[in-house]
Amino acid sequence: MSPPANALTDQALAEMAAFAGRLADLSGAAIRPHFRAGGLVDDKGGPKGYDPVTAADRDAEAVIRATIKHHYPRHGIHGEEQGLEKGEDPFTWVIDPIDGTRAFITGTPMWGTLIALHDGEAPILGVMDQPFTGERFTGSRLGSFLDHRGKRRALKTRPCPRLADAVLGSTTPDFLGGPKDRAAFDAVAKQVRLVRWGGDCYGYGLVAMGLVDLVIEWGLAPYDVQALIPLVEGAGGKFTCWDGSPADQGGAVVAAGDPALHAEVVSILTAAMK
Amino acid sequence: MSPPANALTDQALAEMAAFAGRLADLSGAAIRPHFRAGGLVDDKGGPKGYDPVTAADRDAEAVIRATIKHHYPRHGIHGEEQGLEKGEDPFTWVIDPIDGTRAFITGTPMWGTLIALHDGEAPILGVMDQPFTGERFTGSRLGSFLDHRGKRRALKTRPCPRLADAVLGSTTPDFLGGPKDRAAFDAVAKQVRLVRWGGDCYGYGLVAMGLVDLVIEWGLAPYDVQALIPLVEGAGGKFTCWDGSPADQGGAVVAAGDPALHAEVVSILTAAMK
Repeated sequence: MSPPANALTDQALAEMAAFAGRLADLSGAAIRPHFRAGGLVDDKGGPKGYDPVTAADRDAEAVIRATIKHHYPRHGIHGEEQGLEKGEDPFTWVIDPIDGTRAFITGTPMWGTLIALHDGEAPILGVMDQPFTGERFTGSRLGSFLDHRGKRRALKTRPCPRLADAVLGSTTPDFLGGPKDRAAFDAVAKQVRLVRWGGDCYGYGLVAMGLVDLVIEWGLAPYDVQALIPLVEGAGGKFTCWDGSPADQGGAVVAAGDPALHAEVVSILTAAMK
Repeated sequence: MSPPANALTDQALAEMAAFAGRLADLSGAAIRPHFRAGGLVDDKGGPKGYDPVTAADRDAEAVIRATIKHHYPRHGIHGEEQGLEKGEDPFTWVIDPIDGTRAFITGTPMWGTLIALHDGEAPILGVMDQPFTGERFTGSRLGSFLDHRGKRRALKTRPCPRLADAVLGSTTPDFLGGPKDRAAFDAVAKQVRLVRWGGDCYGYGLVAMGLVDLVIEWGLAPYDVQALIPLVEGAGGKFTCWDGSPADQGGAVVAAGDPALHAEVVSILTAAMK
């Protein structure tokens, strides 16, 4: 049976966060030389169409996996490229070296390296690292922080009780599922103050920073979301599936800086999806 | 009568480019403390709805104007905040300290400071500066360059003769004019490999870098485009209105890295707008 989410002491959790930061350092060093270098695109193709993956993604996942195995041989690892390797311990590292491959291949600094630690019940630690801008977002029950140019600041979402005042971010209308998903999204989007597209994982960092109020996305994998849940929630926000259930397995998700706004949006999405 | 575009010697043009860089330094210093600081949003409001401007925008325009007046008192200045001040010489500096105010107020590093020099016939020099990432794009007939972290590299657009291979960037579907504009945009967008939203002025830098093939936008002002034309064209691309006419007065514009692709897209847009 899985231990409860508080099985790690604060000190042990802080050590895990520092270790996740070292993983991000290594991963960033593997990725950075490939960013904006030509000839990287690999077309996975298939029926879903254009789905680029880069050599950088694979190199970074390899170095992350090797480092975890060396330091925590009993932990599991779940990554986009090489899938799930179960561990003997309940802890699993859930990683996506380049979340936002479309941002990456077009040179846009909105992609990030996602590193989460799942304790068997929930993701308890998340890092979203942006190796080009040098920003590192880290979240857990100890709080959420942004490290940038040698400075660390605590992150706090902003209050936004009224949907009419909200800034909503999302990556692209093309990721939509069926017309029902789109109608549900629009039911929220038509009421907000401003919609911003093109956010990728960076958008969740902006929620944690209190600059964006809401992110609504769909079709996400576990490794797309697990690092972002502790980041948003550690800053005071709430992050679930559209129906309010836990988002750690991905799917259609909603992150909000203000828990009251989150509750309202979940009720709009739930009603629209009925 | 205006002098021809080559009235400035290469050396004089390089001096103007260096001066534009100093303007960007001063402007960036005025803007940077306000980026991601709270309480900046100013709602111009009006019938068009949400149109934020920041104290940073006004401070930066003031320092740019004062510096130009000190060094080139005979030059004109055209900026978003304070409008046009005509000069005695045919040269006019066309500036927008924060192009992409929506990106700015949401903390996204896709806004930029735009500084152009218009010689009476065309914009002959353009700077697009991103004070947060520290990237400075400069373009003229002398070529286009990216300065970043003390290094300068020459920029070159990439070949992309086939529309089916193109990456298309644009800022937001919400900036669209009428249904005819949208149909014209879609006539191109449905044929490309990938559409990326959320680019703001940064998207044109990605065209100059050879990472994006095409940007199509609409409803732009002169100060939104003049810095970007020499940047894209100095890197080998082409930048006009949808009908192929000069884009220096803004409007609906198309920038392409590959001139052959530009010609094809202009013909699609022109046909769709008939």
